[in-house]
Amino acid sequence: MPIDLPTFKEIEAIVGAGHCSQHHDEMACYAYDASVQKCMPSAIAFPKDATEIAALITLANRAGFFVIPRGSGSGTTGGALAVQGGLVLVTSRLDNILQIDTDNLVAHVEPGVKTGQLHTAVEQKGLYYPPDPSSAAFSTIGGNLAACAGGPRAVKYGVTRDYVLGLSAVTGSGDIIETGVQTVKGVVGYDLTRLMVGSEGTLGVITRVTLRLLPKPEAVRTMIVLFDSMARAAETVSEIIRRGIIPRTIEFMDRLSVRCVKDQMPVSLPENTEALLLIETDGTQTEADQAIVTLQHLSNAQHAIGVVIAKNNTEAGQLWQARKSLSSAMYQYGPDKINEDIVVPRSKIPDMVKRIESIQAETGLTMINFGHAGDGNIHVHIMLDKRDPAAVSAAETAIEKVFDHTLLLGGTLSGEHGVGIAKRPYIGKEIGPTEQMIMKKIKRVFDPNGILNPGKIFPDNEALIY
Amino acid sequence: MPIDLPTFKEIEAIVGAGHCSQHHDEMACYAYDASVQKCMPSAIAFPKDATEIAALITLANRAGFFVIPRGSGSGTTGGALAVQGGLVLVTSRLDNILQIDTDNLVAHVEPGVKTGQLHTAVEQKGLYYPPDPSSAAFSTIGGNLAACAGGPRAVKYGVTRDYVLGLSAVTGSGDIIETGVQTVKGVVGYDLTRLMVGSEGTLGVITRVTLRLLPKPEAVRTMIVLFDSMARAAETVSEIIRRGIIPRTIEFMDRLSVRCVKDQMPVSLPENTEALLLIETDGTQTEADQAIVTLQHLSNAQHAIGVVIAKNNTEAGQLWQARKSLSSAMYQYGPDKINEDIVVPRSKIPDMVKRIESIQAETGLTMINFGHAGDGNIHVHIMLDKRDPAAVSAAETAIEKVFDHTLLLGGTLSGEHGVGIAKRPYIGKEIGPTEQMIMKKIKRVFDPNGILNPGKIFPDNEALIY
Repeated sequence: MPIDLPTFKEIEAIVGAGHCSQHHDEMACYAYDASVQKCMPSAIAFPKDATEIAALITLANRAGFFVIPRGSGSGTTGGALAVQGGLVLVTSRLDNILQIDTDNLVAHVEPGVKTGQLHTAVEQKGLYYPPDPSSAAFSTIGGNLAACAGGPRAVKYGVTRDYVLGLSAVTGSGDIIETGVQTVKGVVGYDLTRLMVGSEGTLGVITRVTLRLLPKPEAVRTMIVLFDSMARAAETVSEIIRRGIIPRTIEFMDRLSVRCVKDQMPVSLPENTEALLLIETDGTQTEADQAIVTLQHLSNAQHAIGVVIAKNNTEAGQLWQARKSLSSAMYQYGPDKINEDIVVPRSKIPDMVKRIESIQAETGLTMINFGHAGDGNIHVHIMLDKRDPAAVSAAETAIEKVFDHTLLLGGTLSGEHGVGIAKRPYIGKEIGPTEQMIMKKIKRVFDPNGILNPGKIFPDNEALIY
Repeated sequence: MPIDLPTFKEIEAIVGAGHCSQHHDEMACYAYDASVQKCMPSAIAFPKDATEIAALITLANRAGFFVIPRGSGSGTTGGALAVQGGLVLVTSRLDNILQIDTDNLVAHVEPGVKTGQLHTAVEQKGLYYPPDPSSAAFSTIGGNLAACAGGPRAVKYGVTRDYVLGLSAVTGSGDIIETGVQTVKGVVGYDLTRLMVGSEGTLGVITRVTLRLLPKPEAVRTMIVLFDSMARAAETVSEIIRRGIIPRTIEFMDRLSVRCVKDQMPVSLPENTEALLLIETDGTQTEADQAIVTLQHLSNAQHAIGVVIAKNNTEAGQLWQARKSLSSAMYQYGPDKINEDIVVPRSKIPDMVKRIESIQAETGLTMINFGHAGDGNIHVHIMLDKRDPAAVSAAETAIEKVFDHTLLLGGTLSGEHGVGIAKRPYIGKEIGPTEQMIMKKIKRVFDPNGILNPGKIFPDNEALIY
């Protein structure tokens, strides 16, 4: 749906000249996100506060255009794409850390604050904000809330949802609302705060967030453990948890992932490395040290073929650098990738990995698996050339099979990326029709005209009015 | 609204003879909860599963009677009372712990399971379910979810909401729904799970819950710290948190609370004791021990007039016994009590306590304060004789003043008890009209005919249809 010149002038009147555009070249920068698809907006705007956002949404309801909230566009499921045109509302000017309250372990921030920027700011004060999506250097807190971002540390510390105490937002009706509290406890009325978290910009535009912080752990220790079989690595993860040890991260990489990054490792890896665990412990220095020694013994008992404990921060940094370079390094296996984000109960990881291997054999596709083993979150990457219709068709078959087995094991289709448009066709596999109907009615409560982020989450969440 | 005999016969056909009643004496047992008010039900029923509950609610919609879900009736705000009559639906037969999954640190339980029973069962397997409302011995998991129960351990471990991964429920339409996942991560569709938590039985009847567990801490140490001023005690709490120490509990008692229970203490308390902190540390034995020593030094530096560290579990048990006897012991100050459950940001406790003292002076009322200082949760008890109209009127004035100051400090009117009917008149002080309207519309999504638990939470949540 186009935004005509008189309407654009109204947008300009709200945000000011220089803070909105309909120029093709400028809009092109906001036509993509990390899902690597392209949808040109009808216009882009950079409001400075909740009042301007409310005015834009009120105008959208009156003039009849969609509003697509956007942080940094680091989402992988297309949640920030203007799939049906409309105004892309970028939160980059709402980028203030309003307060870090060291007495109450709370931060008040605007949605455009970069996650990594918040990490740095709170750690300088001896505090800690655990959620750490891989995109933390550029993803925004608003986007993290929209997708309920997780990351490696979730195994010990939980996900974004667990740190949001309250927020302000502008609903699809243009109303400014305040939800939640500034404290861990609070039970007055329904929990609109967590309803907004994970709603992918379909219920409201978040304009301010109150986040819970923790004291920064005194020490962190890092190790990698190598195995000659994925099953053994997965069994070790289960054994760690069974022993009552909760490391702050338990990342895993399969054989192909290890091959992608072995040259960046500070140590040489045995040829028969089929799986790698990257583990961090934290706490006081004594706790972190003791836990790493316990894990070393446990790994040896589990027939690890190698255990490397980082001697210092530099070595730990190199291990993480290798892990973080995976997303780009894997392109050596194909020009395109399809990225899934399944979660299964931890103890089902061996079963899931075995099924992925059989799907690989059945389809002839290259599939690379790594992720957050500690909480059963597996990032499955299908590497292919999307210009090859046979490969695309095989990939579609493979995804169906991966999802079916995930749900069979009691898992979920998305741990931390959300549904967006990428997983929209599959939501019915996990969410029943009654529950979907309830969700759609809730959508109408917040956004009666279907202005906000159309075409996301639900298969038939097309324009409700136009 | 009465339930006539033909309708009661339909109820009996659903749950079976012997599992429902309209006898006055039997119903009288379900006319009360811990709010000490009386509302006679029109009937009571004890369904055995979700199917029977769905049939009862479907019947309620057709025949036109209210349904009031009820656990053990340990709620203090009247949430389980049949304020407008109707069928009290007791979950006592849904009392199975279905599975404790030690590999995935998850428990699947029915809503009628007692919280304390779950504690015992998981601890026998080396696991830990942190939420521990004072009523844990008799309160149910279903009721805990309805009120988002907390307890002393919330300062370190969070509240019920933080442990609910998914649930089944029957909505007010009679639909059986499944929400959430079995894993910590999961972001497919809106978060209906946390929407149900804290909704006080107004959206649905919970029939099954998936709870996250933790490994049981190896050791717990317990201490009390005495002060000659409440301000100093409160300042010590702030200082503990500021130092980056999160004990598993930091309970406080004011002067009158201490006097109530001093005879049950295993040690004699100095005459000038104006405030007491009851602190627990946990973790490995080393961690718990180290933390208690650090807190001992910190307390001395904060001019504590006494520090008593429990030497063993028996002594620790005696300290807790004294704390737990408070609720009944305080009746020595008056035949009736009004119990509030405010929360303020931790650092504002001294300010709040000072204001409560001034309100006491202004109104001449006896007010006893104790609670969970670690998370700013203060249970304010007004002791009075409710037959004295002047005292009742003074209490109403005092409550208004307490609430106004709570909100001024950025707090909330209820940390863990919910709104029910007791705080319904005040909800407008905390929740704005737009947010209330959104909540009421959400209520209609789940319960279009207003069948479920009428008269709760919202000032005008009366019968929607009848």
